Amino acid sequence: MEWIGDPASERGVREQRFDVLCEGRRVPGILWRPSDATELGPLVLLGHGGSLHKRADYILATARRLARHHGIASIAIDGPGHGDRRADGGLDPERVGAEFESSWQEPEATKKIVADWKAALDAVQSELGSGPVGYFGLSMGTMMGVPVIASETRVQVAVLGLMGVWGPNRTRLADDAARVRCPVRFLAQWDDEVVPRDRALDLFDRLGTQQKSLRAHPGKHVEVPADEMRAVADFLALHLG
Amino acid sequence: MEWIGDPASERGVREQRFDVLCEGRRVPGILWRPSDATELGPLVLLGHGGSLHKRADYILATARRLARHHGIASIAIDGPGHGDRRADGGLDPERVGAEFESSWQEPEATKKIVADWKAALDAVQSELGSGPVGYFGLSMGTMMGVPVIASETRVQVAVLGLMGVWGPNRTRLADDAARVRCPVRFLAQWDDEVVPRDRALDLFDRLGTQQKSLRAHPGKHVEVPADEMRAVADFLALHLG
Repeated sequence: MEWIGDPASERGVREQRFDVLCEGRRVPGILWRPSDATELGPLVLLGHGGSLHKRADYILATARRLARHHGIASIAIDGPGHGDRRADGGLDPERVGAEFESSWQEPEATKKIVADWKAALDAVQSELGSGPVGYFGLSMGTMMGVPVIASETRVQVAVLGLMGVWGPNRTRLADDAARVRCPVRFLAQWDDEVVPRDRALDLFDRLGTQQKSLRAHPGKHVEVPADEMRAVADFLALHLG
Repeated sequence: MEWIGDPASERGVREQRFDVLCEGRRVPGILWRPSDATELGPLVLLGHGGSLHKRADYILATARRLARHHGIASIAIDGPGHGDRRADGGLDPERVGAEFESSWQEPEATKKIVADWKAALDAVQSELGSGPVGYFGLSMGTMMGVPVIASETRVQVAVLGLMGVWGPNRTRLADDAARVRCPVRFLAQWDDEVVPRDRALDLFDRLGTQQKSLRAHPGKHVEVPADEMRAVADFLALHLG
């Protein structure tokens, strides 16, 4: 694990870039912690959406809310072919999205992203201390997160959504969903123009845990109400506290 | 309006039976208020479920929570053919449910229950003062509530659920749902053995307001999680406050 540059602090939150190596891949990440934290304690994994990156606005907002309101640390990593994993920095979102969709169809795609998340989690916990783990990821963040949660017993709670039994690798996604055992809040947008509504409800249905709840609102894919987005950190903290 | 018997007070909540007359029908009700209340202020209408009555456990619990945590008054009335509207007191739930289902198919059934609720609301507000109004009713409480909310502009927020475009009068229910304009939280049970899941989602879909959210949990018709039931009063209070 390599810490990149100097940490930055803003209003009680310390932010630090890092890289981990996983099976020869460089995985770029960020760690957020309360500035006054000593032990790591609970940790939330933040998986960003397609064509975005580890410091997308709502990822950063959730990380800061977790640290400021709940004293909880979090990490985000760039998804495959996203953000600092690209030489071009991912400045062309359409190109990033299209390349991800193509690469996600490779048979090993799921295994690789699970390995990336485990490598980042292992590295941070071995340096800073262990504790219960949560996961938050919408859309592509759910595509990546479901296999992680299904195979990682450290994850004890998750907020997922804006995804369905849909897109490349839908069969693997459905199979992995059935192996999810932790409490899950699942967000769906009633008028989602990207993921058909019935496909999202099908994914919620297939989640293997009985401690799950669906929260759906009118509106398109990226129109989750602001108060529901703020409630993500509070829900995770409640279960990790 | 006739107050029946003496009010009873328990831990800060004053409870008072009343009857109102509506089109020749005696409508039995209960009013709950904070014991120290002077003006009425906001008022919540509580519609009970089929084969139950105006003082069913979860109705009473919601009324007490509204009064104790939020200082908000509420009223419940017995539904058609329920509770004190019956000479036998409604002690045989199966018989009550079957008779309601049959009577609800009468062309005037919806109009009558809307008139009953308006009569109770008018009576209480004219005696005690006016303010914004909320509605809470699940299952039969939603069957009764949707036409009330659709035609009563005083209602500014509602919690509904456990009902669908289903059962007797489903066409009228669907039409009334389209006329609902206030914010609505809609509860659904994923494994509801009474109201088919797709029928419940259809009713949520038809609600005419865009300020609506669906909250679904695994479990059967009467298995709404306790924390979700407690959250009903908090949601109503947030919008009435």
